[in-house]
Amino acid sequence: MRHRTQVAIIGAGPAGIFLAHLLHAEGINATVIERRDRDYVEGRVRAGVLEQGTVDLMRRLGIAARLEREGLVHGGTNVSLDGRMFRIDMAALTGGATVTVYGQQEVMRDLFDAAEARGLDIRWNAADVSLSDLDGVHPVVTWREGGEARRLDCDFVIGCDGYHGVSRGAIPASVLRTFERVYPFGWLGVLADVPPAEHELVYANHERGFALASMRSATRSRYYVQCGLDEDINDWSDDRFWDELCLRLGPETAAKVTRGKSFEKSIAPLRSFVAEPMRWGRLFLAGDAAHIVPPTGAKGMNLAVSDVTMLGEALTEHYRERSDAGIDGYSARALARVWKAERFSWWFTSVTHRFPTMDGFDRRIQIAELDYLRGSPAAQRSLAENYIGLPLEAA
Amino acid sequence: MRHRTQVAIIGAGPAGIFLAHLLHAEGINATVIERRDRDYVEGRVRAGVLEQGTVDLMRRLGIAARLEREGLVHGGTNVSLDGRMFRIDMAALTGGATVTVYGQQEVMRDLFDAAEARGLDIRWNAADVSLSDLDGVHPVVTWREGGEARRLDCDFVIGCDGYHGVSRGAIPASVLRTFERVYPFGWLGVLADVPPAEHELVYANHERGFALASMRSATRSRYYVQCGLDEDINDWSDDRFWDELCLRLGPETAAKVTRGKSFEKSIAPLRSFVAEPMRWGRLFLAGDAAHIVPPTGAKGMNLAVSDVTMLGEALTEHYRERSDAGIDGYSARALARVWKAERFSWWFTSVTHRFPTMDGFDRRIQIAELDYLRGSPAAQRSLAENYIGLPLEAA
Repeated sequence: MRHRTQVAIIGAGPAGIFLAHLLHAEGINATVIERRDRDYVEGRVRAGVLEQGTVDLMRRLGIAARLEREGLVHGGTNVSLDGRMFRIDMAALTGGATVTVYGQQEVMRDLFDAAEARGLDIRWNAADVSLSDLDGVHPVVTWREGGEARRLDCDFVIGCDGYHGVSRGAIPASVLRTFERVYPFGWLGVLADVPPAEHELVYANHERGFALASMRSATRSRYYVQCGLDEDINDWSDDRFWDELCLRLGPETAAKVTRGKSFEKSIAPLRSFVAEPMRWGRLFLAGDAAHIVPPTGAKGMNLAVSDVTMLGEALTEHYRERSDAGIDGYSARALARVWKAERFSWWFTSVTHRFPTMDGFDRRIQIAELDYLRGSPAAQRSLAENYIGLPLEAA
Repeated sequence: MRHRTQVAIIGAGPAGIFLAHLLHAEGINATVIERRDRDYVEGRVRAGVLEQGTVDLMRRLGIAARLEREGLVHGGTNVSLDGRMFRIDMAALTGGATVTVYGQQEVMRDLFDAAEARGLDIRWNAADVSLSDLDGVHPVVTWREGGEARRLDCDFVIGCDGYHGVSRGAIPASVLRTFERVYPFGWLGVLADVPPAEHELVYANHERGFALASMRSATRSRYYVQCGLDEDINDWSDDRFWDELCLRLGPETAAKVTRGKSFEKSIAPLRSFVAEPMRWGRLFLAGDAAHIVPPTGAKGMNLAVSDVTMLGEALTEHYRERSDAGIDGYSARALARVWKAERFSWWFTSVTHRFPTMDGFDRRIQIAELDYLRGSPAAQRSLAENYIGLPLEAA
């Protein structure tokens, strides 16, 4: 079967489905092609902290009703150094901006529910997705659906299929340049139905390593401790996890930790990755297909949202104003913001984690950096403006 | 010959001689013991940028008359990335604070002239300086002067004798902890009697390495380019130096560089170093005896000044108020500020220099950091408050 649309979106993760809604709102035809089914995509446990701009976009798309009811608005965040905690009053430092704790699973559910209600064209279980003629004016996407071959002719292909997707690989190796940093540790994460220790997040730098006290709701906690990449999850009983977490958070916060049975426990590696350019011919990359950040600072999903916000503007300009300025400027504009978020995520990881190669000087520099942060409104404002999300500058 | 004083100061560099003036102003007796002669100490070509607090101290000590006439007050500083320069308006960002360009040689001349006029006790050419009984209440300093043995009994010994001095070594190895970072490059510096390229300093990060356009006066320029530690100064003709400098500063600034014959040319290594604690018994370390910073950001002499300002307060408290709170708190108080300056100097070095081990990711992070700095008033304010000098916080 052969179809035609204006924009083919590869992948129904946050980048793809946000973009589908953005284009729908502008009356631009789009088809989303997703390798998995809805339950799989919706079920992935990922990010949970939304930047101001992500919340604003959900409002603009008219899918923020549940977010408004259930999301936890945070005007600040906490940093802890060897058990001594201080708060960064992000709202006061940025003129009122906040972040909102609302799980990626919840965001996806709202996006998919609205997609169904609005009749967005999403093709689930699309196997063997292949892109061709990306360097001409009539790109083609082919795949198999229930054993049947499908073909989609379109004006543009947007690669939102993540790090392991096919889109990035469609850019010739001679054009593509990649940048990577693999960190020598992982995050051991736990979900438990217990009330969170603190009202807001705690990023803890402890002699023994990093810990993060986060949450999904007022009754569901999300905790992490830095661990070795070679560690076996089976060596981490709930008791051992709670003990280590409490040690790293320090006695004051530990006293507020409610222990409980974990229902999700996993080790995730940390990586920084960027692919340049983010556009090749009629193919545009967005989200994890083009870049990965370590989770420190919660930039991953938010970066996908800023990418597709720019793409939405660029495609609208193309179809409505017959101008390709936005399309031609997309890669440079997106990468400028991506690299700033990469820098922030790398920095926040660097100052809060224990590196195996650290010597006494490195450790003292970490302590000095967090001591300086504790005492300097300028340094706090810099952290805050990155944490709540840098503005989408003009191209 | 045997003498007695209240405070023995080892070394007549900036730390020692500033402290001698501070104590003199408080009516505390002090003797300065210096290994070299005045010409040698005064002739050393070193720092040239004074923090606001250093200028304030010179005013307070009544030795700022020539500084007021000849010093160049800078309300801003420039950062250049691959030839594109932007200015950081430090005065506007910090409520009016500035730095003042005034060579360390000029500072020393003013300090020594005033010391002579005020009859400060400075012993030049003191050989074989030795410290003893530092852990008791009656420390002793011995040395040889013109072949004669001298002995000074005192209440306190202040080690201001630099990195290679004897003071730090008088602290038992079991007590002393040191932290060090050696950078894999040096600064090739040149002095020339030509007007400076820009009114204010330019810190340049270029693909080929760091460069710094500084000055001593309106007619004397101080320029640096990052170089390898194994390079031979004889391979650097003036022409080669000016060519490389101009390349790294970029065409716009290069067009304003006046070339001329250099009269000082040398390669200096870059190092970070801190010794802890800064007090042992009746011995107190100040300045380079306790810490070294890389020259990026010009913190070296200014740190010596903040150390002895704290020591001056502590000793005044001791003699006037019979309280040892300041003395007992000195090491922790000084180190808190030292480490913040170490962090700043390390950071400013890290984001502006080319490291031999840098990969594409590191370079992109540097570019992102300077791009972010270019656009963020918060990041600029953070740099500015460090550059003009962090406040001397309470103990």
